[in-house]
Amino acid sequence: MSVTLSATLAANEEIARRQHAGERVLNLAFGEAGLPVHPSLVERLARAAGRNGYGPVAGMAALREAAAGYWERRGLPTDPETVVCGPGSKPLLYGLLLAIGGDVVLPMPSWVSYAAQTELAGARPLLIPAPPGEGGVPDPELVVPAVLHARSQGREVRSLVVTLPDNPSGRLAAKDTIKEIARIARALDLTIISDEIYRDLVHLPEEDFLSPADVAPERTVVTSGLSKSLALGGWRIGVARVPSAELRARLLAVASEIWSSPAAPVQEAAAYAYTEPPELVERIDRSRLLHGTVARAVHARLVRAGVTVHAPQGGFYLYPDFTGLPGGFATSAGLAAFLLDRHGVGVLPGDAFGDDPAALRVRVATSLLYGETAERRLAALEARDPLGLPWIAASLDHLDQALDGLNSVRPAARAPRRTDLSALPAAG
Amino acid sequence: MSVTLSATLAANEEIARRQHAGERVLNLAFGEAGLPVHPSLVERLARAAGRNGYGPVAGMAALREAAAGYWERRGLPTDPETVVCGPGSKPLLYGLLLAIGGDVVLPMPSWVSYAAQTELAGARPLLIPAPPGEGGVPDPELVVPAVLHARSQGREVRSLVVTLPDNPSGRLAAKDTIKEIARIARALDLTIISDEIYRDLVHLPEEDFLSPADVAPERTVVTSGLSKSLALGGWRIGVARVPSAELRARLLAVASEIWSSPAAPVQEAAAYAYTEPPELVERIDRSRLLHGTVARAVHARLVRAGVTVHAPQGGFYLYPDFTGLPGGFATSAGLAAFLLDRHGVGVLPGDAFGDDPAALRVRVATSLLYGETAERRLAALEARDPLGLPWIAASLDHLDQALDGLNSVRPAARAPRRTDLSALPAAG
Repeated sequence: MSVTLSATLAANEEIARRQHAGERVLNLAFGEAGLPVHPSLVERLARAAGRNGYGPVAGMAALREAAAGYWERRGLPTDPETVVCGPGSKPLLYGLLLAIGGDVVLPMPSWVSYAAQTELAGARPLLIPAPPGEGGVPDPELVVPAVLHARSQGREVRSLVVTLPDNPSGRLAAKDTIKEIARIARALDLTIISDEIYRDLVHLPEEDFLSPADVAPERTVVTSGLSKSLALGGWRIGVARVPSAELRARLLAVASEIWSSPAAPVQEAAAYAYTEPPELVERIDRSRLLHGTVARAVHARLVRAGVTVHAPQGGFYLYPDFTGLPGGFATSAGLAAFLLDRHGVGVLPGDAFGDDPAALRVRVATSLLYGETAERRLAALEARDPLGLPWIAASLDHLDQALDGLNSVRPAARAPRRTDLSALPAAG
Repeated sequence: MSVTLSATLAANEEIARRQHAGERVLNLAFGEAGLPVHPSLVERLARAAGRNGYGPVAGMAALREAAAGYWERRGLPTDPETVVCGPGSKPLLYGLLLAIGGDVVLPMPSWVSYAAQTELAGARPLLIPAPPGEGGVPDPELVVPAVLHARSQGREVRSLVVTLPDNPSGRLAAKDTIKEIARIARALDLTIISDEIYRDLVHLPEEDFLSPADVAPERTVVTSGLSKSLALGGWRIGVARVPSAELRARLLAVASEIWSSPAAPVQEAAAYAYTEPPELVERIDRSRLLHGTVARAVHARLVRAGVTVHAPQGGFYLYPDFTGLPGGFATSAGLAAFLLDRHGVGVLPGDAFGDDPAALRVRVATSLLYGETAERRLAALEARDPLGLPWIAASLDHLDQALDGLNSVRPAARAPRRTDLSALPAAG
């Protein structure tokens, strides 16, 4: 087993260690939503604290019904029977890969855990670059030859993952690309796993979003959760929409043997959240606005520093390319280590996302800029001009200084104290 | 992938369905502790409801320290660094099997999920009968030849699981057997996984308990959790004591890619529970007493009906053998289906635990006899004579009638309406 601690979690723990030791570190490495729990959810969880039964493996009826309603309001008629809940969408994704079996087509770059999960499930990823300017989706033109070639080598390729909108690139695949992916998946008989955990945080108008479930409902599984839209990562709750009865039975079998069910009190609160009451809709609206505003501000600073980077379209990520800047870095890991060691800026190297290690691309997560206390995060959420809040302005200045420093770096300056984030020891 | 929905969870869902449809069913199938959450834990969870960060993969520091203290008070010096927390001990066990790799020696019978998890992890179980009269431990005399034979066939055998005290048999392995298992594990270079989730519910004196971690600390991983002792199954919290740094790193890698961390508010409450404050020690004492009293009452009824069954020594399980009773059942599944269909008594057939399908052994869980409401369960917990409570007495009468019915059954009577619990469809 060659899998090591999830790069994103490892980086977060390394940064926390440095901060704890008194270092000033700008954490742009971790994909936590960085916002407080809405009081109405705190109250619901508290009220459900006495719930201690395991409940059904698929999740409690109220949660499955509420999640079905969530999808119906997004144009996807959903039978609650087809909903499977899990302790996060991460275990659901792993369970799906295990239940489907076979090798998996992944976009390159893509979220750190897809490839690792594929390997833990005893299969191999087929990493296929995203179309130019897009993210979260393998280039349809490259998928067919790659799958046919792999199959000619005796490999069984059974599924394809898309991320809408994408982590790490912050981009949303074009509707035509999704239609093409659906067509190809049909032709190649692939199950599409559409990870839509950032869907409610798309900065673009709603009509720009197309799910493969809209186009190829018979072969698409959608996964989602409350970790990003409502900042409930630590609550561990995810949902999957699994129309195929056969796949659902297999997923439930896996779920029953690996995790049983999500925490019962969390399920109760999540059931409420998925009914989309007005105060939570408003909270998500505000969060989307804040994420977009700060991500665009970081984008502007990167562009100003001469970095090549596409504008963010959803979530709180950017995926800049530092090629052409001075420094002569050989790998994205080297660049990321330099930024952390010399400038106290934590980012994740592109190779953690399956990208070419020699490409100088890193993932920048902007969601931990909102502040280090619940009060500051709430203030950021409620501010008319979050960029004017002193702690956010200071963080953006810190980033500017790092970019200035990078632009004036000479090769000789960056030898000592390398930290390879991908080779970190276990959590501690 | 041949794994189906966990037999124990499937049976529970089938019984719930029948109860919902108005059938009178005595649920002796499900291993839920059947007791309410202690108010001090309700309060702790409610107070922690605002915690939404992912936190460290290994679990928050306070929880790891408290769990280390728990083991230290049981004679096992424990560095908090060696503690890994998970959303239940079930995912921790799966993660361990995946991280260790290779085939796994299991006692026969043993908890339904070990063999299924082994298969999901791409390996094969080696089922080895428990020594006569014991449970939860493979017969040491049979382990060596079985492992050597498997290895001579090219199989890699790397670990051995024990359950102390045992589910399904309710028995506690003798100290000499544990010493012998430790000796053999050393000789064969096997990692011992000691599932001690029922440890605090042993009915025997504390000095009768010996963990392989006491004897072979260098190669023993202990798993535990709060699902049974404090009836927190639905909260999903487990802990593992993993002395080997290498194995721990691998387990954390798996954890980071499959489940991230347990729910943060649950971790906070669990950290409190593992400090073992007086009110929770008292709660566990009372629970142990109730489990033992009711399990022994069921034991007495089974014996009276002519069933062969060992006395329970821990937890809330019995593993009776119906061989010799009338009926001419061909399999334990047939017997279990008959008990459910004809007598409204839900038990799990022995073959779900890896036992010989033709042996007429079933697992009887007694913990759902305490009542169907929180009030009744609390009353059972506080009663001087729980067997005298009308709802418990009525359930025991129900069992007596079923046993009488079984003793008067003629082969012809049991043809129709068979329900094979192991072949149930997915949850719904």
